[in-house]
Amino acid sequence: QTTTPSDLESNADHPKLMLTSKSVDDIKSALGSVPLFDKSLERAKQEVDAAMAEGIQVPIPKDMAGGYTHTQHKKNYAALQKAGALFQITGDTKYAAFTRDVLLAYAKMYKSLPRHPQERSYARGKIFWQCLNDANWLVYMSQAYDGIRGWITEEERQTLDNELFRPFADFLSIETPQFFNRVHNHSTWGTVAVGMIGLVMNDDELVDRALFGIKDDGIDSAALDNDGGTIKKEGQKSGFLANLDEPFSPDGYYTEGPYYQRYAMYPFLAFAQALETKKPELKIFEYNGGVLIKAVDALLNLTDADGEFFPLNDGQKGMSYQTASLVSAVDIAYYYGNQDPRLLSVALQQDNVQLDATGLAVAQGIHQGKAQPFIKESMLLRDGAKGDEGGVAILRANYEGGTMALVMKNAAHGLSHGHFDKLSYSLYEDGEEVLQDYGLARFVNVEQKNGGGYLKENTSWAKQTIAHNTIVQDETSHYKGIFKESSKHHPEVTTFETSDPNIQVVSAVEANAYPGTEFTRTMMMVTLDHHKKPLLIDILNVTSDSNHKYDLPLYYKGQVVATNLDLNTPPQLSPLGTKAGYQHIWKEATGIPSTENTQFTWLDNKKFYSATVLTEGKDQFILGRVGASDPEFNLRRDPMLIHRRNNMKNGLFVQVIESHGTYNPVTEKAENAYAAIQNIKSLASPQGYTALELTLQNKDRYAVIVVDSAFAKAQHKLELSNSTYTWKGTYYFKQLKN
Amino acid sequence: QTTTPSDLESNADHPKLMLTSKSVDDIKSALGSVPLFDKSLERAKQEVDAAMAEGIQVPIPKDMAGGYTHTQHKKNYAALQKAGALFQITGDTKYAAFTRDVLLAYAKMYKSLPRHPQERSYARGKIFWQCLNDANWLVYMSQAYDGIRGWITEEERQTLDNELFRPFADFLSIETPQFFNRVHNHSTWGTVAVGMIGLVMNDDELVDRALFGIKDDGIDSAALDNDGGTIKKEGQKSGFLANLDEPFSPDGYYTEGPYYQRYAMYPFLAFAQALETKKPELKIFEYNGGVLIKAVDALLNLTDADGEFFPLNDGQKGMSYQTASLVSAVDIAYYYGNQDPRLLSVALQQDNVQLDATGLAVAQGIHQGKAQPFIKESMLLRDGAKGDEGGVAILRANYEGGTMALVMKNAAHGLSHGHFDKLSYSLYEDGEEVLQDYGLARFVNVEQKNGGGYLKENTSWAKQTIAHNTIVQDETSHYKGIFKESSKHHPEVTTFETSDPNIQVVSAVEANAYPGTEFTRTMMMVTLDHHKKPLLIDILNVTSDSNHKYDLPLYYKGQVVATNLDLNTPPQLSPLGTKAGYQHIWKEATGIPSTENTQFTWLDNKKFYSATVLTEGKDQFILGRVGASDPEFNLRRDPMLIHRRNNMKNGLFVQVIESHGTYNPVTEKAENAYAAIQNIKSLASPQGYTALELTLQNKDRYAVIVVDSAFAKAQHKLELSNSTYTWKGTYYFKQLKN
Ligand SMILES: [Ca+2]
Ligand SMILES: [Ca+2]
Ligand SMILES: [Ca+2]
Ligand SMILES: [Mg+2]
Ligand SMILES: [Mg+2]
Ligand SMILES: [Mg+2]
Ligand SMILES: [Mg+2]
Repeated sequence: QTTTPSDLESNADHPKLMLTSKSVDDIKSALGSVPLFDKSLERAKQEVDAAMAEGIQVPIPKDMAGGYTHTQHKKNYAALQKAGALFQITGDTKYAAFTRDVLLAYAKMYKSLPRHPQERSYARGKIFWQCLNDANWLVYMSQAYDGIRGWITEEERQTLDNELFRPFADFLSIETPQFFNRVHNHSTWGTVAVGMIGLVMNDDELVDRALFGIKDDGIDSAALDNDGGTIKKEGQKSGFLANLDEPFSPDGYYTEGPYYQRYAMYPFLAFAQALETKKPELKIFEYNGGVLIKAVDALLNLTDADGEFFPLNDGQKGMSYQTASLVSAVDIAYYYGNQDPRLLSVALQQDNVQLDATGLAVAQGIHQGKAQPFIKESMLLRDGAKGDEGGVAILRANYEGGTMALVMKNAAHGLSHGHFDKLSYSLYEDGEEVLQDYGLARFVNVEQKNGGGYLKENTSWAKQTIAHNTIVQDETSHYKGIFKESSKHHPEVTTFETSDPNIQVVSAVEANAYPGTEFTRTMMMVTLDHHKKPLLIDILNVTSDSNHKYDLPLYYKGQVVATNLDLNTPPQLSPLGTKAGYQHIWKEATGIPSTENTQFTWLDNKKFYSATVLTEGKDQFILGRVGASDPEFNLRRDPMLIHRRNNMKNGLFVQVIESHGTYNPVTEKAENAYAAIQNIKSLASPQGYTALELTLQNKDRYAVIVVDSAFAKAQHKLELSNSTYTWKGTYYFKQLKN
Repeated sequence: QTTTPSDLESNADHPKLMLTSKSVDDIKSALGSVPLFDKSLERAKQEVDAAMAEGIQVPIPKDMAGGYTHTQHKKNYAALQKAGALFQITGDTKYAAFTRDVLLAYAKMYKSLPRHPQERSYARGKIFWQCLNDANWLVYMSQAYDGIRGWITEEERQTLDNELFRPFADFLSIETPQFFNRVHNHSTWGTVAVGMIGLVMNDDELVDRALFGIKDDGIDSAALDNDGGTIKKEGQKSGFLANLDEPFSPDGYYTEGPYYQRYAMYPFLAFAQALETKKPELKIFEYNGGVLIKAVDALLNLTDADGEFFPLNDGQKGMSYQTASLVSAVDIAYYYGNQDPRLLSVALQQDNVQLDATGLAVAQGIHQGKAQPFIKESMLLRDGAKGDEGGVAILRANYEGGTMALVMKNAAHGLSHGHFDKLSYSLYEDGEEVLQDYGLARFVNVEQKNGGGYLKENTSWAKQTIAHNTIVQDETSHYKGIFKESSKHHPEVTTFETSDPNIQVVSAVEANAYPGTEFTRTMMMVTLDHHKKPLLIDILNVTSDSNHKYDLPLYYKGQVVATNLDLNTPPQLSPLGTKAGYQHIWKEATGIPSTENTQFTWLDNKKFYSATVLTEGKDQFILGRVGASDPEFNLRRDPMLIHRRNNMKNGLFVQVIESHGTYNPVTEKAENAYAAIQNIKSLASPQGYTALELTLQNKDRYAVIVVDSAFAKAQHKLELSNSTYTWKGTYYFKQLKN
């Protein structure tokens, strides 16, 4: 059962990635007195014990995601990462022996393995169909190896170093530069994998390769990955530090969006933790303005009230900060940041900590009663390495018993996982979507659905503009749906004002999506006296050098309750169009406005919602549903309401969205089933100004004025309908006297 | 503030409906020592105080359900019912004075009130658009009046007796016999209202009228109500006791289904409680085999794991035993039944008790720790006054961590709220629908949706056979959708065997839905060794004197994951048919079976489900979706899979349904995403027997044999594929040796 440490020097050198001999000592002396740590340790033991009970299974790689070999190799690295830590913390050699034996089984197989038989990746792995998963494997297995490298024999160490890990690192880097040498989440995993195993083996060459990339990689600048993303721009830096410079903005926003950020955070932080131990001179947690800690805060804020990430760009809904990589992120941010007590309440919800000094600190903080609620506030997360490429705006209203959140994507394209959705937004009430972003078209790890990979409808539908709550010109996506074009530009956020929680405003301008046309969209989240929940006022100005057709969809959910539209339902359903996502929409009805205000009320999650829309003479509405041109039933049959205007040069789209009532199926009471807004009126106003009057059902009236960014000045004065308005700043909102 | 009791005799006589002077004393002395009672009292005070703060509002009746006057009059009776009890229990005269003042306001208005201006009811009320709501009003107001009648002045008493309550009782009965003199939930409310106010006013004539109905009502036997239900059959008895005889079966099943039973239970039980006090010689709780207490038990069992009622017939989903009428039902059943401790755990979930002796007993039982879990078991609830009109079968599997429930409607039509759905079923996992019954097409109390009333799609869609998980011949509903025909017949339940929880079986025969054709459907809920969750085996035998086309729908929910069908999706969607509900289905795809077993896997609520269906040469499948011919968007866009067979005389439909896996969007793990069943084979067998062989993915094989009811005998012996099978009873299920 026991094996004598074979090499004292090597033993003293380990562990060093997540654990150190000092943190191991600290943990050992705290065991039994810090409940959340003890619980997390116990859970890890159960997991690893269960894996050990199934025996050593290292099959020849064969399957796609969801299949047996894929799943087993994932299970192996998940179990061994924990086994390495368990050996260090408990001293039980069964964990070390199991880790050694599994790794030796990999070593036996590895060198003779060809690339994976599944050929669909631009960078095929050996253990998995894509190098990305191989890199995941190496990141976790580096930690497993770190746990036992001081305990195994010199001969075993030579075998694992030379037959498994060094070839593995070379394979992921110099043998697959198109994977390793990018600025992309793939390369983050790749560089971290190589760097971590380099640290474990004291191999400085590997660590340098990880930090700074490969000099001459021979990558063709025209090459693309499976998502159609550019592999590498001319002259671009590579390596871990370049990956830390570029995709994060100064506010910690990761340009691919929170779903990919959540995935990328783990390697960033795990490697940073190891570097902080082994290369403290890098001051990695202060790097680039302390961006790593800021990124954790940004990520926690990019969630709904349940902690589920906003599905900006390619994001699978339901992913949340309960995920394991966020447990690490929260623990590391707490420990290496400034012990923000709000992080402790997130850790409490996660009900789990890392098995290292950071997890111990968090569990101790909680045990000492230091946790503070993590109340999410409004914020602008600027995009771009310099923070000058637009940004994601979040407006939140926290009222008694609930919260509403608007997330508006005024950011850069988002690399290969970006969507063509400039100025689009989603709206949440508590943990539920009110106006949704479709998310991605993929069933991650569901083998039956294209091996768990992206479905073709991700490109033909989910990425297209019409799949989003934003404006489409001439049935064509922004930037014609061309990734390269969209990547060259970004909107400008011209106003972001949230200091008055009752009147919060964001404005952004998109001038490049359709050459010759400019969109200015202002969204106001306004809480009135007698309404606890806010109104959302959406004002979209279009100016163009020519006439075009426009569509503005509203992705509501649930059932239609009422509308004053004159509805016409066709006897047969046809797709709304032929391209740019329109081929995926069934046209269920057309609606002609009956007055200058169209109202549309729906019931979802036992709540009544309404949109009140300012309409013009020849406006049309379309009640559509996703699902046309979908031979494999890959798409959800979600509904939408499209506001269509033909042949417009310059013009205005205005809508007010409200959550106004509730339905209780037990008492069968419908409370406030009618919209509070009765009327929106557009007031004649000078160039540069958009002026509206809102009238509520209770006859209260409000004036809303927004100023075009080109007409910004310190002080504004306007005569409208016999009243004089004066104000400072880019917008005006005030109740009118009756 | 205080008023001297004006009439001692009358004072001593009150209260007498829900409270008595003795129970008031008991309650007073228990106050402060029984937490759930105190909490319920406190909640009632808050409700009534809030209503009093809004002042006396007795508007002239005008609106439909959901509108102001309708809602206000409902609020009034809800508040006053509690105010009467609060006055008795607390002695605070503010409650008595408010009750008196509101009632006097009604008295001032009542006699000159015409029938309600909304004309759509077959029995228009005065306060509300239909007498049903007026009867609700009188039931609750009788209790309110009972609380204060001993406290007000003789003059006030004369005013209320003669200007309000006696005219109100006459209006509901002799002036509206088509409402009062039926066997129908409307008449239950009507008779109870008249009986209760009769008891309050010591008016024996009213009490007799309530108990035994009106002799010569002059009702035309051809008359119909708004739902198309017959008002009264020739020679039918009427009055409260007739309503207690007829709709309840000896098992306590109410033929209209649980949604209406829940609504009817309150007047039944409230009046029974009053009768038990004032007319103990009736022994009302022993009446008809103690059916009232049995009915409460039946109702609690007709729910999913959340306590939500199965939406048999016209039932609005989401209604549950949390509803106020079930609080009363549970309390009364506990007190007047045999103090079943399982009822206490339901009361705990309700978190509320009645403010009377029954509620006090329940709260005390809970406080004394007597509550036992209410574990729902399999049961057959026979239908019909004599229990010989088929029945609703419930099969349940309670396994570690969950429960599955099958509810199969082999019952009588269900009066005017019945659906044409013989042998149909729904399947639940925990609190969620797996295979749904559509329920009703109505948004109760949502004014915008047809004033909260039934939508026309309730008749054209929700009641039709194709809207259910049962078989349709020649695109025509059972009994051609004719209520009168369907009401003449009922299926026979030929097997109901649940003594082995691992092999539970129900069989039923329907021989009249299509003359010349007989259906025998057997559903088995089978738990195999290595599968905690049960398989559902559905075997449907058709014998006919001629060739017909058949459709068997499967109302799954969620997203399609995989199928081995050869799918063909049309470029345009058309309705599946022109009548009998088919006009409401969009044909999204057709599927041709690729082998003798069709598999269809879907993902819903993070779980993987599959149907494996035995198919024949020319079988077809249709992937459909509800929503065609729906100009007002009244229907949910729910999907279904229809198994279609053309031109069949005699034949067999077999499918196996499983809940086999889970998807976790946080870990992104898909566990057991594939069906456990690999193959269903039909074995050649002699007349009267249906024999199948099931093969699992793990190669285990099972024999399933069912015996036609016409071939029932004590002992069966069969040679099949070189094996001999002997068994007793109507079915055989056993693992085969490999
Ligand atoms: Ca998007
Ligand atoms: Ca998205
Ligand atoms: Ca039904
Ligand atoms: Mg959520
Ligand atoms: Mg999107
Ligand atoms: Mg439920
Ligand atoms: Mg139904």
